[in-house]
Amino acid sequence: MEQQAEKLQRIVVSALDEVLGLPFKVLDDGFVRVIDYMGSDESVVQAARVSYGKGTRKVQEDRGLIRYLMRHAHTTPFEMCEIKLHVRVPMDAWRQWIRHRTANINEYSTRYSIAIDASQKTPPTEWRHQSKNNKQGSEGFVDAGLGVQLSRQEEELQDYVRKVYNERVEAGVAREQARKDLPLSTYTEAYWKIDLHNLLHFLALRMDERAQYEIRCYANVIGHEIVKRWCPITWEAFLDYHVHAASLSRLEVEIIKAIQSGEPEKATELAIQCGLVPPTGQEMKRSREREDIEAKLKELNMPIPWARR
Amino acid sequence: MEQQAEKLQRIVVSALDEVLGLPFKVLDDGFVRVIDYMGSDESVVQAARVSYGKGTRKVQEDRGLIRYLMRHAHTTPFEMCEIKLHVRVPMDAWRQWIRHRTANINEYSTRYSIAIDASQKTPPTEWRHQSKNNKQGSEGFVDAGLGVQLSRQEEELQDYVRKVYNERVEAGVAREQARKDLPLSTYTEAYWKIDLHNLLHFLALRMDERAQYEIRCYANVIGHEIVKRWCPITWEAFLDYHVHAASLSRLEVEIIKAIQSGEPEKATELAIQCGLVPPTGQEMKRSREREDIEAKLKELNMPIPWARR
Amino acid sequence: MEQQAEKLQRIVVSALDEVLGLPFKVLDDGFVRVIDYMGSDESVVQAARVSYGKGTRKVQEDRGLIRYLMRHAHTTPFEMCEIKLHVRVPMDAWRQWIRHRTANINEYSTRYSIAIDASQKTPPTEWRHQSKNNKQGSEGFVDAGLGVQLSRQEEELQDYVRKVYNERVEAGVAREQARKDLPLSTYTEAYWKIDLHNLLHFLALRMDERAQYEIRCYANVIGHEIVKRWCPITWEAFLDYHVHAASLSRLEVEIIKAIQSGEPEKATELAIQCGLVPPTGQEMKRSREREDIEAKLKELNMPIPWARR
Amino acid sequence: MEQQAEKLQRIVVSALDEVLGLPFKVLDDGFVRVIDYMGSDESVVQAARVSYGKGTRKVQEDRGLIRYLMRHAHTTPFEMCEIKLHVRVPMDAWRQWIRHRTANINEYSTRYSIAIDASQKTPPTEWRHQSKNNKQGSEGFVDAGLGVQLSRQEEELQDYVRKVYNERVEAGVAREQARKDLPLSTYTEAYWKIDLHNLLHFLALRMDERAQYEIRCYANVIGHEIVKRWCPITWEAFLDYHVHAASLSRLEVEIIKAIQSGEPEKATELAIQCGLVPPTGQEMKRSREREDIEAKLKELNMPIPWARR
Repeated sequence: MEQQAEKLQRIVVSALDEVLGLPFKVLDDGFVRVIDYMGSDESVVQAARVSYGKGTRKVQEDRGLIRYLMRHAHTTPFEMCEIKLHVRVPMDAWRQWIRHRTANINEYSTRYSIAIDASQKTPPTEWRHQSKNNKQGSEGFVDAGLGVQLSRQEEELQDYVRKVYNERVEAGVAREQARKDLPLSTYTEAYWKIDLHNLLHFLALRMDERAQYEIRCYANVIGHEIVKRWCPITWEAFLDYHVHAASLSRLEVEIIKAIQSGEPEKATELAIQCGLVPPTGQEMKRSREREDIEAKLKELNMPIPWARR
Repeated sequence: MEQQAEKLQRIVVSALDEVLGLPFKVLDDGFVRVIDYMGSDESVVQAARVSYGKGTRKVQEDRGLIRYLMRHAHTTPFEMCEIKLHVRVPMDAWRQWIRHRTANINEYSTRYSIAIDASQKTPPTEWRHQSKNNKQGSEGFVDAGLGVQLSRQEEELQDYVRKVYNERVEAGVAREQARKDLPLSTYTEAYWKIDLHNLLHFLALRMDERAQYEIRCYANVIGHEIVKRWCPITWEAFLDYHVHAASLSRLEVEIIKAIQSGEPEKATELAIQCGLVPPTGQEMKRSREREDIEAKLKELNMPIPWARR
Repeated sequence: MEQQAEKLQRIVVSALDEVLGLPFKVLDDGFVRVIDYMGSDESVVQAARVSYGKGTRKVQEDRGLIRYLMRHAHTTPFEMCEIKLHVRVPMDAWRQWIRHRTANINEYSTRYSIAIDASQKTPPTEWRHQSKNNKQGSEGFVDAGLGVQLSRQEEELQDYVRKVYNERVEAGVAREQARKDLPLSTYTEAYWKIDLHNLLHFLALRMDERAQYEIRCYANVIGHEIVKRWCPITWEAFLDYHVHAASLSRLEVEIIKAIQSGEPEKATELAIQCGLVPPTGQEMKRSREREDIEAKLKELNMPIPWARR
Repeated sequence: MEQQAEKLQRIVVSALDEVLGLPFKVLDDGFVRVIDYMGSDESVVQAARVSYGKGTRKVQEDRGLIRYLMRHAHTTPFEMCEIKLHVRVPMDAWRQWIRHRTANINEYSTRYSIAIDASQKTPPTEWRHQSKNNKQGSEGFVDAGLGVQLSRQEEELQDYVRKVYNERVEAGVAREQARKDLPLSTYTEAYWKIDLHNLLHFLALRMDERAQYEIRCYANVIGHEIVKRWCPITWEAFLDYHVHAASLSRLEVEIIKAIQSGEPEKATELAIQCGLVPPTGQEMKRSREREDIEAKLKELNMPIPWARR
């Protein structure tokens, strides 16, 4: 706190300045552009150090500190960085996007202006199958022939609905009402401003493989193209401690400890107590919780204690 | 703070209990239902009095206190009441609704389930004209004949788009993707939970005549049917100090003071200084700010000082 | 939205850059410093125009637009600007400060570091009297002699308590516990980051004459020294439409309309109906609500209709 | 969504009703009381099912669903429950408490009323040593003799400061100013209202052993006495998936996989690549990140691959 009278310059991130305003393309007609930003990895360190009443140190220590903060969920220093994006997104994905309540938003108004004349089109090869195991997911693609047909049908639908929209507007119907039957695939635009901590939370959820493909495309661009340029040390720590991390429940910790102590039967006993595995002699029933545990043990190259039975 | 050891009963509002779970109809197929609530006018008073370190008093004083809090923007006691609604809303209105970031939301998932098979239909007599003065508003209705035609066209459109949606789902396309061309008029449902202060803020914006008709219908039902039953004293104060209130800018205050002192030329002088009225002899140009002032003076039965020129 | 591919420069506010990092002194040993910022008046306009799908226009129109947004409570464009301050504040004022929940905060940690060795000292001439009318306010100052005595007593108290704190720390007591009896007057420091809309809301409450003197000093410095340099057009609009504005309740609007129509007895009748004025012949009782109305009528140089009785 | 017309009763939790209003004692003179609540485990399920468009099922499935939601960080259904507490807390702990910005708060006002005449007193046996390894923690207790001395000194200090406060108030000094040198140990009271998701987040941070002892006492009472009664299934899931869970970083996952594949030297190689372990032959330097990894491996009964060198 000693240097408090000193004149400052704003923090500048050259790697981000280089792409300021330039669109990163997403989907068939969407984009993400950085409009402005505040702070950098350095600001995270600076904010953490106000807590400690200390000045800045050398880069290696800064990296260690950022990783420490990320590892131990000290999230407030990451809130000291802010970024403002200009995005163009299909309304369907935007509906998911704005469920994140911690951002500032100004969206293109279809009450005030004519709706953007563009809808997201699905190419013939990208119509996804409903997933069988995951009621809210997709897996694989439909046949080529069917895909061609679906895309042609979609194009007709979008043209038709746009024609109706235009006719309404020309007939003098208020824009706020004329738009009511536009498809969810219609593009919208917005300024979206958020701090780094909340942006990472958004990315953790939306880069996840369970997130819908379309919004995942945006999340990946924001992460790998923008945050990586803006705050590279934070980005690396985020990948290490969130994106590529795993979490172990109380039971998983105890099962692993038992396995590692050479007591697999104790591990089985724990699972029986929790009702995840039936007592010996009884039939194994389906359990989503047990399957999740088994998947995690497999990922860690560990044996499933009750599998031998 | 003296009675702190006393056993409590939860606060009950009989007038609201009577309608708990019952749908208030909105638009052609929407509704609002109260699912649960916490607190009442009494909780507002109780919260205000913790600040004062005092116990409860008689009803008349409670009313005075609630009105005092509302008048002087002491908002935190109103945050002590919470309500949970189940709503059914066209996605177009829902897009505006969820811009309010202070609520808790669980929405019906069209990734997980088949989209609700209902779209908001506009009757022939309710197609609104684009407003000429207000770029984001509407005024009056289109001709009867045109209305009939627009409604017929809409019905065809909605049937057609639904047919496409169903075909996609039957062809095995993932629900999350099949929905992408559904119209914004498709109904969605959600639980929406919010505290009383933030609910009133929502209502102030959405009951306003500049809000779009559709969401205004919901806001009016929530206000006049639900909040009025739940917290009648707060509701009355809200109408008196927000909905039916007017605000005067610095300049308006000074103009009114000048008028009331019998110095209308001083009022004009003030408007000239602010660039809203041209110096004598020059032509009056359009000014949205001056027009807003003139409208307010008229509403208060006051003369417009510069009109005599 | 046409220029979307264009390379951008960050928005710069030279008037703010000139004071970046320099402390504005507050109270005896506090300060406020600007550390970083994002955006300007121009960003407010830019955000409003994304809604309208339009590009930038000339300065005069920008001013008109910002004033329009402020007048009609279109608040989201003001959220597009962000500022980060470094503040040094007595904990007593900080307790009020952090009640505003929309900011990002990193505070100096007295668990990690030795508490800042400075307490806010009240000079002999600045000990304020408890207000008689306002239970949570002050008015006037105590006698000079008493003031000298109080300041001397305070100095002794602060020295004594600091000595105890130091003894605890030297005896090996944990810092997190040693601090427990430090006075609320102890200075703390923090980074405080907030968007312009929420900052103005903070200032509206804390620049108000009913706010406590100490926090008002900070609010005035932030407003008049910092926001004025940063976003001068927004600042002027804020003063005009919030700080120096007045609001009229439903009843006040009706009373003024009646007075202006030359029907003061109708105005009195309205007040009687609301229970604020007793029917003719009965004695006038104290009413905070009526007093507030009378004060407003006086401020506007208007007669009090029921005063003649 | 079929039963939407049905009349409802509010959800009641008898186990919580039994303790409504009764104080759970914390520290020497603090408490936590439940004043009101909304919802239960059942509401979490209900909210999750609106997403799925399904009605309620049997208890065992409800438990599985709640655990699934907790395991996969589907947090919004937990926001559907709300609780309101009346707490009495030393200002020092309260300063930490209100850093959580997602709650609604009404605090006792020492501007309006005389400060509560109670300060938290530390008994002779509870003065904690500054931790050597953790700059912001404590470990162990000071000697009995020193403890007696510190407690006596504290009592004198608190009496003296209270005497000064009383003298100021009696001399007519405004309460808002008289309070400025009260110790942080002074008790305050507040209503604190929060939803279940954000409450669990608060508890995860404040029940943690790294949280300061005093606030940990409150968190443990709120968790084990209140949430456990209110939403027992959610509480159990929270303990299993958060409080007693462990998280593995990308590197830890890879190290464990290597160990389990019988390739400890590959695990060491990974640590060398990350700069956590020096190449063979060089001296091991201190690294907080490596120490954290080693601690986790030990906890799981796993060997530390590079320890053999």
